[in-house]
Amino acid sequence: MRDKQAIEIIGAIDLDPAKAERDLGEVVGASDAPWGVKVFADPQQALDLNADVVIHATSSSLAKVMDQLLACLEAQCCIVSTCEELSYPFRTQPELAAKLDAAAKEWGVALVGTGVNPGFVMDKLVLTLAAVSQRIEQAKALRIVDASQRRLPLQKKIGAGLSVDEFRTQVKAGAIKHVGLPESVAMVADSLNLPVENISETIEPKVASERVATEYLTVEKGQAAGVHQIARGLSKDGKELVHLELQMYVGAKDPSDTITLTGHPNISLTIPGGSHGDIATASVVVNSIPVILDAPAGLRTSRDLPIGFFSPSAKP
Amino acid sequence: MRDKQAIEIIGAIDLDPAKAERDLGEVVGASDAPWGVKVFADPQQALDLNADVVIHATSSSLAKVMDQLLACLEAQCCIVSTCEELSYPFRTQPELAAKLDAAAKEWGVALVGTGVNPGFVMDKLVLTLAAVSQRIEQAKALRIVDASQRRLPLQKKIGAGLSVDEFRTQVKAGAIKHVGLPESVAMVADSLNLPVENISETIEPKVASERVATEYLTVEKGQAAGVHQIARGLSKDGKELVHLELQMYVGAKDPSDTITLTGHPNISLTIPGGSHGDIATASVVVNSIPVILDAPAGLRTSRDLPIGFFSPSAKP
Repeated sequence: MRDKQAIEIIGAIDLDPAKAERDLGEVVGASDAPWGVKVFADPQQALDLNADVVIHATSSSLAKVMDQLLACLEAQCCIVSTCEELSYPFRTQPELAAKLDAAAKEWGVALVGTGVNPGFVMDKLVLTLAAVSQRIEQAKALRIVDASQRRLPLQKKIGAGLSVDEFRTQVKAGAIKHVGLPESVAMVADSLNLPVENISETIEPKVASERVATEYLTVEKGQAAGVHQIARGLSKDGKELVHLELQMYVGAKDPSDTITLTGHPNISLTIPGGSHGDIATASVVVNSIPVILDAPAGLRTSRDLPIGFFSPSAKP
Repeated sequence: MRDKQAIEIIGAIDLDPAKAERDLGEVVGASDAPWGVKVFADPQQALDLNADVVIHATSSSLAKVMDQLLACLEAQCCIVSTCEELSYPFRTQPELAAKLDAAAKEWGVALVGTGVNPGFVMDKLVLTLAAVSQRIEQAKALRIVDASQRRLPLQKKIGAGLSVDEFRTQVKAGAIKHVGLPESVAMVADSLNLPVENISETIEPKVASERVATEYLTVEKGQAAGVHQIARGLSKDGKELVHLELQMYVGAKDPSDTITLTGHPNISLTIPGGSHGDIATASVVVNSIPVILDAPAGLRTSRDLPIGFFSPSAKP
């Protein structure tokens, strides 16, 4: 965000006592700190600064962040949020979606939930590729991420190093889950006019076929190396119209993002190596700032917005 | 276009006496003809029907089609045009661009030049992929098309079967050229904020290394099999910041579309087999109807518009 000359960061919010009331540059360990930007413990103090846009990254759960989002809208701030459930909540949480849309319109601002996934690989990019198609019958996306190079919290979040039993227990408890696949299924189905009646989701462990050691932990053969999660959009008679598959595990052999559209004509697309989860998410969020500021008031989705690169010297 | 329930085709225009004043369904040889849609020889008669949008496909040259476009705008029709030079004319023909933009705003309608290339592979898709990047230093696109499966006029247009000397003569005469690469270079450079000062273009023959026979013609070893065209966006000191390369020839071995972005992070994308030129162009054009109808008045480009699939039953 600091690369973009058109943006001025005027404040930050963090409830963590170790960060609150300090300088943002110092909190993030920047070499050019201090930045003269304060981290507020009280969100309202930051919102009182009259920002044009709030970059919001606190939780995957839309229900949990409703009050935060409504406070930002009431302060007449546009919002770019990484809340996965906000990416396309019209099927999964229609009442919350309607409430946010109404509040955004009342205050004359726009908000969007986006990131690399949901927000890009399995929805926006699928729909962009679909522009070259005359007819579409089925959409598939497969994202394979090698978690070996990622940070420890992510490796733990995907259950790397757990026994298969522990993995399944944590899945049941809701602790292991990539959030956002059903939202992407819904966006793709609605946009391609595929008659999806039912969205299902499965989470299985990727079991290590050999020992894998990362900087942070070791996964023994037979232990869980990460998640293998599939969301399916099914027609009334059970036909799979949308298939979104995420394999995120340490030691993944061929990381890549692949989209496959069946129709007229068939067409596919591959990003060898895949888009980098951490950098790509931050980039999509920052690159969405000009488009959300320019969007009509209301709840928007990555489908509606002409995403691209936010030039460093561009005006937002 | 007939697949989309939201569209009604109300008229067509063709100056060809063999087509004019006949039924459109009969002219295109449709099995369900007649459609009750007339092909007009006089454009004004079609424009008097008060269409919401005109699909315009007559020439690659913006100067040649200016009067046609202005007549459509004056009739308060939005326009989706395949005129390659219209795709991003702000650098190459700024006066014509300004005139069209002003006329469109005066009449309260929007127009766009688009298709698969320019309009998608080498510009829109490049900019979409750029959304996952934090910093971009160079953009490359390579489109390899096997012309063997394409229609005879295209095979002739790319010089397949000519001697290398004849090929060069026809390039000099302007008869062999894919139009639109400099427009895509300009769109990419401006959107990624790459300091391109100079756009250059080369057209060379792809020389057949063995005999190739298509349904329509035969290319002997040593003859031209098609075009190898490169447009470059160069910085003031000659650094190549944008590189768009088209190889379109009969017998091409690995047809594909590939985009490569250098920056942070590096990222690339491949469409194996490539997007199909004829179907993809028509699809992008038809899929652009809802977005141009929804766009603010003025001259738009594929960069501005959130392209996707135009659902058969969607409202435009």
